[in-house]
Amino acid sequence: MAELNRRIVLASRPHGEPSPAHFRMEEVRAPTPQEGEVLLRNRILSLDPYMRGRMSAAKSYAKPVEIGETMVGATVSEVVASRHPDFAPGTLVVGFGGWQDFAISDGSGLRRLDPAVAPVGTALGILGMPGMTAYTGLLNIGRPKAGETVVVAAAAGPVGSLVGQIAKLKGARAVGIAGGAEKCTYLVDELGFDVAVDHRGPDLPGSLAAACPDGIDVYFENVGGAVFEAVLPLLNDFARMPVCGLVSGYSLTDLPPGPDRSPILMRAVLTKRLHIQGFIVWDFADQEAAFLAEVGEWLAQGRVKHREDIAEGLDRAPEAFVGLLKGRNFGKMLVRLS
Amino acid sequence: MAELNRRIVLASRPHGEPSPAHFRMEEVRAPTPQEGEVLLRNRILSLDPYMRGRMSAAKSYAKPVEIGETMVGATVSEVVASRHPDFAPGTLVVGFGGWQDFAISDGSGLRRLDPAVAPVGTALGILGMPGMTAYTGLLNIGRPKAGETVVVAAAAGPVGSLVGQIAKLKGARAVGIAGGAEKCTYLVDELGFDVAVDHRGPDLPGSLAAACPDGIDVYFENVGGAVFEAVLPLLNDFARMPVCGLVSGYSLTDLPPGPDRSPILMRAVLTKRLHIQGFIVWDFADQEAAFLAEVGEWLAQGRVKHREDIAEGLDRAPEAFVGLLKGRNFGKMLVRLS
Repeated sequence: MAELNRRIVLASRPHGEPSPAHFRMEEVRAPTPQEGEVLLRNRILSLDPYMRGRMSAAKSYAKPVEIGETMVGATVSEVVASRHPDFAPGTLVVGFGGWQDFAISDGSGLRRLDPAVAPVGTALGILGMPGMTAYTGLLNIGRPKAGETVVVAAAAGPVGSLVGQIAKLKGARAVGIAGGAEKCTYLVDELGFDVAVDHRGPDLPGSLAAACPDGIDVYFENVGGAVFEAVLPLLNDFARMPVCGLVSGYSLTDLPPGPDRSPILMRAVLTKRLHIQGFIVWDFADQEAAFLAEVGEWLAQGRVKHREDIAEGLDRAPEAFVGLLKGRNFGKMLVRLS
Repeated sequence: MAELNRRIVLASRPHGEPSPAHFRMEEVRAPTPQEGEVLLRNRILSLDPYMRGRMSAAKSYAKPVEIGETMVGATVSEVVASRHPDFAPGTLVVGFGGWQDFAISDGSGLRRLDPAVAPVGTALGILGMPGMTAYTGLLNIGRPKAGETVVVAAAAGPVGSLVGQIAKLKGARAVGIAGGAEKCTYLVDELGFDVAVDHRGPDLPGSLAAACPDGIDVYFENVGGAVFEAVLPLLNDFARMPVCGLVSGYSLTDLPPGPDRSPILMRAVLTKRLHIQGFIVWDFADQEAAFLAEVGEWLAQGRVKHREDIAEGLDRAPEAFVGLLKGRNFGKMLVRLS
């Protein structure tokens, strides 16, 4: 393999919002698989908000990407050389190939994809980590009942859009929060949300209250910040709040100015008997087969829909990722590698 | 009934910490039961932190006591006159007689007590609302497993002391936080806690960290404030936090100074996958029989212990209540009526 491997490494750690300057493209020789390994050619790279956490040195549930290391990321990849008995060349898989053209894998964490079942890009979105995040968090922690109101932000994204659609399938009322009229129209007209609220509008608390006349029973938390502040007063007794992300705070360099509002939150927990629970998708790893079967069937039947936002070329990944953190994407953010 | 009824009414709403001056003793004629009612003579009055909430006009899960109204409270009472078929004079009951000598009841909410089974005062403590709060919150939300570490504050009080003792019965490690050496010694020597931490000591965060070398798996929250701040960094992944009270904040008039620390809390929820859930004991009303049977048996067998702090005379109730909010009581705070 004399081929070149282009890879995007972390050039420096951002203090605050990341920019494309925090990344660097390198060209190296493509690696060679050893016995028991496969060489993957990455075809599609997934960009996800959690990657912001990997750029920081702060302790989280995964170790940070070191300076000079290739950025991590899920990929749809093709096996182009194999010294592994289970993966023949030509096999399409979903795995963790990272922000680069080629990757080596020992097969662990690879899952075979069948393009006849669903477009392979769905393995990074509605039938991948984002979809499973929505499915497991909503059904295990949110537990929406028919007639209840479910609110989710970043609702045009891959997690939020499936949260709202599953809420509808469970007979609940789905209220989505998104940025801009185009996304809001999409939520209601295409995905069947009951109401969409534009967080760029002049009065988010007032608009959200108007959209939730019976209060909020489930708030699927993936953004935090101003959205959560608008949600908190509207939560009903016994409301459930799965917490899978806080994207609005990922680039905060300082705590917000005072006063310290945490007593407001804890008092609401107490008096409203809220259930707040953080999770990451792999906490529910044993539900992956059930997720793939059920959401896969919904997708095949057209009962749930999805949308992709595709950047062309690995070199576009940094810019697309920065845009993702600002909500510039419309649908699941993917990078198609040449 | 020409007898006098002494009653303590709410004289004014406190702004900040209550004092005895916010209460007023009145003497009125004892009421007369109508058809279907009983006249109760209150023998023992329970004082509990939740009463601070009833003194405020702020919305909570129960309506406030109005100015001039008799303070609410659970009592052990004797039926002294009856026009109710189910309650003969002489019957001892636990009910909601309030801060007064006599009360009228239509029988709803009354439960018969048998002094041969347990001292009747326990119906206000370990076999009453505080005990059931500990039992239901710990077992339904905290769910301690053998070998895990359970932390509870106000640990010499009726809720905290049972939380720690049940944790021990479940094979967990029990760490109690209390104010002063005497209470701390009691927790370890009498109740069998593994460690007690004096929150009046010079370095609560450091002492608590030393007491919890393997972190904290269950934090039973009944105080908030500085204790919670010491607990938060020690919580393990997947820690559970039943929230039944925030007594340190009940008399706060302003939010603490900034910065706003709520993002620290929410980030911990996310990265540690914490489960935080508020509850009040009546959310688990259907578990009352199981609670009475199980804890009653533990108590009869000497596997759990309890302690009472008794003030003599109704007129002492305001002062005793103010002391309770400051942690001056040692054990379940009761007022024996003459």
